[in-house]
Amino acid sequence: MSHTKISSIGEFGLIDRIKKIVNVSVDDASLIDNLLIGISDDAAVFKPKPGKVQLLTTDAFAEGIHFDLTFTSLKHLGWKTIAANMSDIAAMGGIPRYATVAVSLPQKISIEMVEEFYHGATAACKKYSCKIVGGDTIASMANMMISVSMTGEADELKIKTRCAAIPGEYICVTGHLGASVAGLKILKREKERLEQANEKELFSPNLEAYSIALEKHLMPKPRLDISKILTEKIKIGAMIDISDGLASEVHHICNSSGTGAEIYEHNIPLDSITQKISEEFGEPATDYALFGGEEYELLFTIRDEEFAKLEKLTSDVTIIGRITEKSKGIILVREQGEQLPLTFGGWNHFRF
Amino acid sequence: MSHTKISSIGEFGLIDRIKKIVNVSVDDASLIDNLLIGISDDAAVFKPKPGKVQLLTTDAFAEGIHFDLTFTSLKHLGWKTIAANMSDIAAMGGIPRYATVAVSLPQKISIEMVEEFYHGATAACKKYSCKIVGGDTIASMANMMISVSMTGEADELKIKTRCAAIPGEYICVTGHLGASVAGLKILKREKERLEQANEKELFSPNLEAYSIALEKHLMPKPRLDISKILTEKIKIGAMIDISDGLASEVHHICNSSGTGAEIYEHNIPLDSITQKISEEFGEPATDYALFGGEEYELLFTIRDEEFAKLEKLTSDVTIIGRITEKSKGIILVREQGEQLPLTFGGWNHFRF
Repeated sequence: MSHTKISSIGEFGLIDRIKKIVNVSVDDASLIDNLLIGISDDAAVFKPKPGKVQLLTTDAFAEGIHFDLTFTSLKHLGWKTIAANMSDIAAMGGIPRYATVAVSLPQKISIEMVEEFYHGATAACKKYSCKIVGGDTIASMANMMISVSMTGEADELKIKTRCAAIPGEYICVTGHLGASVAGLKILKREKERLEQANEKELFSPNLEAYSIALEKHLMPKPRLDISKILTEKIKIGAMIDISDGLASEVHHICNSSGTGAEIYEHNIPLDSITQKISEEFGEPATDYALFGGEEYELLFTIRDEEFAKLEKLTSDVTIIGRITEKSKGIILVREQGEQLPLTFGGWNHFRF
Repeated sequence: MSHTKISSIGEFGLIDRIKKIVNVSVDDASLIDNLLIGISDDAAVFKPKPGKVQLLTTDAFAEGIHFDLTFTSLKHLGWKTIAANMSDIAAMGGIPRYATVAVSLPQKISIEMVEEFYHGATAACKKYSCKIVGGDTIASMANMMISVSMTGEADELKIKTRCAAIPGEYICVTGHLGASVAGLKILKREKERLEQANEKELFSPNLEAYSIALEKHLMPKPRLDISKILTEKIKIGAMIDISDGLASEVHHICNSSGTGAEIYEHNIPLDSITQKISEEFGEPATDYALFGGEEYELLFTIRDEEFAKLEKLTSDVTIIGRITEKSKGIILVREQGEQLPLTFGGWNHFRF
């Protein structure tokens, strides 16, 4: 990949390049039909689908905090910033529609790197039916920063919130947890090994064996598939996406709903690669699930009889606990029956 | 103002503080009535007004590029980032509705500074009827960064674009131009004087005499007032807001519309403070108007007979040129009749 300075074509030259990348066909023709004005004017203009409510969410990502360009390709970064916003839309019971992408670009970022970023973002949009319709490209003094905003649409009566959990409901998650932070740990370890290597040009990182965890960290998949089932076919209580770690999200649901919860530690779904990595680091794999971030799986509450229906539609959900009365607190139950308060934890980037 | 570290309350503590600031009453009750979910969940949810189209725009701002915290108060910064997005909505012929605000905060930014920022943003929202319904607060390794996204609503048939200019139409602007960059020059000059002062504690910046220009730079007003007139009562051609300097915006309209233009230099409206400042710096005031950025005035094209109507409704618009055939090029006409090509210029932050 060659590296051409952005200053050689300026902001408007760069926007022309970006336009060519993001204006690809999408499967859902209504995304194009309802878009009156895309990238080209002061604002994008679209027709909302009659009878639907509009969703709006924003997620921002900072170099050195959320990503490290020494082991994150710009293509993966583009994918992930779009996927993270889609995960928020999925957690509300909506479908993504239109996105704007603001990037602040330090001098080290070349035109080609920006193009890679938008190729990744566009790939996620194409895969999950969304369209980039605007944004901003600005210079940055030091680090790269990305902010994506996304609209979505939903049926008003099918909106899922954090505050609808009721004592007695199961607490469920989609997929497996802990793999994202496990993958990050491998990437950081290999970066450290490279830094310490005597002959850097001969260094080859040991990544192959961990590819499932790396993909989970670098190219997460928003769970629009399960969200669709939960919205269209099943009645659930509260829902949230797991972006800050399971413990933190359980607290959010309980605080918003005015309930307690018990989480059965041994029920937390962990895949074999997460267990392998946690063993290599001598750390409990459940800590990765409880306190690791950026899973982009869904956490929801559901009554027993609805779960019985759900099981017939997907095998990719696991019961990990029960909603309880508020007075019971938020409790982690260990395999031998020991109970301890589930600390808030979570992925707090402000712990400098 | 005391300065408390954000890490002492964490991201969720900070969000609670922000919620208290942004959740103020607004004059337009429909902003509250149509908002089903604001800051508190994975995404905001609102009902779009039936029969209207939705607008979506994003503007990002980087410390060291767009603002300098040594002479920009956080309150002004909050106001300006909201006002800049409103200006884009105004330029489309829409009215602002809901906004998300993503901020990345380096360690030097205290809780109180974040609160000041949101007080400023909320003041702009209250003044021009908009509501902050979400966002993201993230840490930053080095500089502060802000990205605001805003939705707006408009009648489909009244949307204003950049591409609707027709040869023969007047080119008009609202307000006066050049004051924003003139104000910035004063702020930079006083910062330099402070840096060079021997007894810094005795230094008093010379700002009083320039307050109109400073306010234009620090607290710009989106021209929703004129946009409303142009949308509801007058027929115009193309419209754009002046965020990158007049020359650049004229090029955008001509390139999108497939036309040329002639701009009469001596007709460009300059206020007395801009002329005074340009004289102090020994620079042509029209250069400030042509190549200075962040005016947030409107540039539009209009037929003669419609301008006659407009003049009766507002005195705050000025004819500065004519749209011509594309073959004529984009020309600046000086007072003595001299013609020269109007260079693209504009505020290109990528000229490092």
